[in-house]
Amino acid sequence: MSDETEPAAQAAPGRGGGLTRRALLVGVGAAGGAGAMFAAMGALGLAPESQEKDFTPPQPSDFSLSGKAAAKVVVLGASIAGLTCAYELGKAGYDCTVLEASGRVGGRTITLRTGDRLDELGGEPQTAAFEEGTYFNAGAGRIAPWMVTMDYCRELGVPIETFVNNNASAYVYNENMTAPVRARTARADLYGYVAELLAKASNAGALNRRLTADDRERLAEFLRRFGDLGSDLTYRGSERRGFETYPGVDRGVPLGATPSLRDVLAAGTGRAVTMDFGYDQAMPMFQPVGGMDTIAGALADAVGRDRIRTGTPVTGIRNLPDGVEVTHRGGTVRADYCIATLPPHLLARLPHNLGTPVTAALRTPVPVSAGKIGLEYGRRWWEIDDRIYGGVTETDLDITHIWYPSHGYHSRGGLLVGYYNVGPNADLYGALSHSDRRKRALTQGKKIHGEKYRSELRSSVSIAWRRTPYIEGGWVGWPSHEGAFALLQRPAGRVYFAGDWLTQLIAWQAGAMESARRTVTELHRRVLSATS
Amino acid sequence: MSDETEPAAQAAPGRGGGLTRRALLVGVGAAGGAGAMFAAMGALGLAPESQEKDFTPPQPSDFSLSGKAAAKVVVLGASIAGLTCAYELGKAGYDCTVLEASGRVGGRTITLRTGDRLDELGGEPQTAAFEEGTYFNAGAGRIAPWMVTMDYCRELGVPIETFVNNNASAYVYNENMTAPVRARTARADLYGYVAELLAKASNAGALNRRLTADDRERLAEFLRRFGDLGSDLTYRGSERRGFETYPGVDRGVPLGATPSLRDVLAAGTGRAVTMDFGYDQAMPMFQPVGGMDTIAGALADAVGRDRIRTGTPVTGIRNLPDGVEVTHRGGTVRADYCIATLPPHLLARLPHNLGTPVTAALRTPVPVSAGKIGLEYGRRWWEIDDRIYGGVTETDLDITHIWYPSHGYHSRGGLLVGYYNVGPNADLYGALSHSDRRKRALTQGKKIHGEKYRSELRSSVSIAWRRTPYIEGGWVGWPSHEGAFALLQRPAGRVYFAGDWLTQLIAWQAGAMESARRTVTELHRRVLSATS
Repeated sequence: MSDETEPAAQAAPGRGGGLTRRALLVGVGAAGGAGAMFAAMGALGLAPESQEKDFTPPQPSDFSLSGKAAAKVVVLGASIAGLTCAYELGKAGYDCTVLEASGRVGGRTITLRTGDRLDELGGEPQTAAFEEGTYFNAGAGRIAPWMVTMDYCRELGVPIETFVNNNASAYVYNENMTAPVRARTARADLYGYVAELLAKASNAGALNRRLTADDRERLAEFLRRFGDLGSDLTYRGSERRGFETYPGVDRGVPLGATPSLRDVLAAGTGRAVTMDFGYDQAMPMFQPVGGMDTIAGALADAVGRDRIRTGTPVTGIRNLPDGVEVTHRGGTVRADYCIATLPPHLLARLPHNLGTPVTAALRTPVPVSAGKIGLEYGRRWWEIDDRIYGGVTETDLDITHIWYPSHGYHSRGGLLVGYYNVGPNADLYGALSHSDRRKRALTQGKKIHGEKYRSELRSSVSIAWRRTPYIEGGWVGWPSHEGAFALLQRPAGRVYFAGDWLTQLIAWQAGAMESARRTVTELHRRVLSATS
Repeated sequence: MSDETEPAAQAAPGRGGGLTRRALLVGVGAAGGAGAMFAAMGALGLAPESQEKDFTPPQPSDFSLSGKAAAKVVVLGASIAGLTCAYELGKAGYDCTVLEASGRVGGRTITLRTGDRLDELGGEPQTAAFEEGTYFNAGAGRIAPWMVTMDYCRELGVPIETFVNNNASAYVYNENMTAPVRARTARADLYGYVAELLAKASNAGALNRRLTADDRERLAEFLRRFGDLGSDLTYRGSERRGFETYPGVDRGVPLGATPSLRDVLAAGTGRAVTMDFGYDQAMPMFQPVGGMDTIAGALADAVGRDRIRTGTPVTGIRNLPDGVEVTHRGGTVRADYCIATLPPHLLARLPHNLGTPVTAALRTPVPVSAGKIGLEYGRRWWEIDDRIYGGVTETDLDITHIWYPSHGYHSRGGLLVGYYNVGPNADLYGALSHSDRRKRALTQGKKIHGEKYRSELRSSVSIAWRRTPYIEGGWVGWPSHEGAFALLQRPAGRVYFAGDWLTQLIAWQAGAMESARRTVTELHRRVLSATS
């Protein structure tokens, strides 16, 4: 047996990393010929877009050819990464034990329902007192359709529904405004003026050196459509802005006067209007029906609840000549291999014999603060009064966003996310008691939604991820993807690492799952090729 | 009793129409003081945006003050307009009878499930042979959140879910392309180049006469964000385009080279990229769970199924001195009033004594062709292979759109809308037999989705609205909103008209409902004020 890692795992996570890895996988036979051919075609632009990352789960039959047997693996953390590792290894008969410090599975996919308790380091515990059926996704909240999370939902039978990440009827509110504006209004005005400016610049000859007459005609056609311009290429407002009273039997009553170009630019609505342009934010997005923790729950069921020991904080990790030894508050577990999925800054604190470079590497990523508050109301005033069904109001207030629920439409009550902030704003709220967080969040939200935002509140729960036991951060940021990041992709002896923090999808469940798949692939390959 | 119409009903549907009507409603006491005050505030820009159109349903107590009694009303057509009229009048105890020519309720909100038969004028009937649980919304398919349709869903307890009207992962395909592109890619490239062109024109001084230095700085900040430009204001592609392989442990594998500005303009993706900019198309939109006809079904249940006679085509309408007489294939119905909700071009053919101006007015709007095909597959390849969950692929082919289902995600099979076209394209398909429509639709869709689009088909049903009995059109278009349109807002004696065709929301269920509310309000006011 060797502690050496396969070359594939050493590939730096650069642009060519995926391909290098694939090519190597072909070499070691871990991916089929057809899949490799497809990947090569894709690289040459010959195949349709593929989200595949060529993962083949370990199978019992893998051992029949090798003459080896599945190993015993201790997984640290019933996180998404930890559960995915145990689930995938379990498919081939690996004997996995998952040690989880907290009382629940799922790591940062905490979903709170009535009666659930939320502890806080140095703070008072909270207990959710929601109506039956209300839930609060305090952590992970949305899934992009290309993410592997969707595949796990399908495979595990977790029903999903659309998550509204961008809503034209939601508001944009910045401190410099006298009143919130609808996202559709902000968009229509920004696009209208941008189209007008460019169309007129083109008409005045400013683009003649770059564009042919044909190009300019096509551009003008697009801009008229994009900005809803008049035939003179002027923007004078548009039905796209929405209405004071929407059309019915009669024409609609327009909103007030369209603001000037200067006022539109000064309002600063650009961040809100472009909020879903990113590849990880584009509409539509998705969520499991009934709460994000449904995925972790389904994984835990598939792993086998008897393999998962909650309330079992790990106190030490030791590589042995022929295995690993993990100590925890209740005893010791010995296994052939270990997969550690705790947040790196917590792993760094554990006694271990993995060497000082590993400790230094684990200390390299910087924890990021993030916070959320769930505000429960007995009446869905955002639907009834504001016609907002799901989506996000963007603000430059310290609450940053308000999320409206994308489920339970038209039911009696519901729960908003009253802030979802990161960095300094999250620190600001995190330093407060829960009741002061609520007070501050209500004062801010009231600027957008008026007095009912305070007066109709039923209950609330807030989370400060830096103060959440056994997690202590929303996620981490890396100063670079070389050095420490690359080192921890490799096992330290018989101890592997996995988690969103070891991927390009930090803070996404998909990152945890992708990392788990990589780790499982490499551990399994090692077991199949082990000489002892 | 008088055949005169109230002034409110005579108001032309111009911009001031809504206010005039409201002011009049205040005068006759049909709307409360607070509501009228709110409307006046809104007109002055003092109140938040309101979708209210000040409808107060008739109530039994309305009669206790007037000394009058509810009347008998015969409603022609169990359309959305007809059912809404009977439902709202029923709240005050009106004795309504609904005569429906076809075998089903709901008019153009046809939802087909397995075993349902679809007749066609001059064509072979089709019978849906879907899997259990599959449905095809052959007519109305989506609801905007500001529409009154949402209020009826809430009031009637019809559960709703998000309808994905725009999906960044869906494709754009025009005949001039060698391969389809993802909507997100088309958007990123168009926005990137538009931003670059305007930012550089601004930098070169082309906007100096219009914008101050501060304005230009704000504009540049927006454009960098909008186009994801480099620091030199150049667009060189963006992660927003999507990936060949999305990021995971490793960075994503980018799509092929970003096309040139000229190629992006020539591709003609502008219509697709702006498809949800309209106030009636903006995301998110909604649909009833289980099929659009759930709304019509709930209305029919609320009206009372015993009041609705299906299979009862009307053959004549006569105003009498003290009532109306409607003849139908099975006999005659006499009532105090009639509300006719058939399509105007079918109403125009009925024998009646409403006068030649009414006939001429009914002949004025022009029926519009529209067609859809439902293509059922045993495997959701669009989700599994293409990562498309709901939404629309836009094309310049004669199929115009492909709609992917916004429900039943991850279930075994599902149904696409293989075309939804109007006008000449709808005529082209409508003139074919069903099997030829299917063949043509598959040939077109195959250009986007490849051979599986044909080979994996399970079953199909198509509708040609111009050939649908008792409807004969997708909707109608008016040459103007004066003259005939205004005339038919008024009753012809005791015969009222209602339907989406009498509103600014043609082809929307909301139009039918708004028209019904207007008609109910006016009929009820007349009953309350009648002298005989």
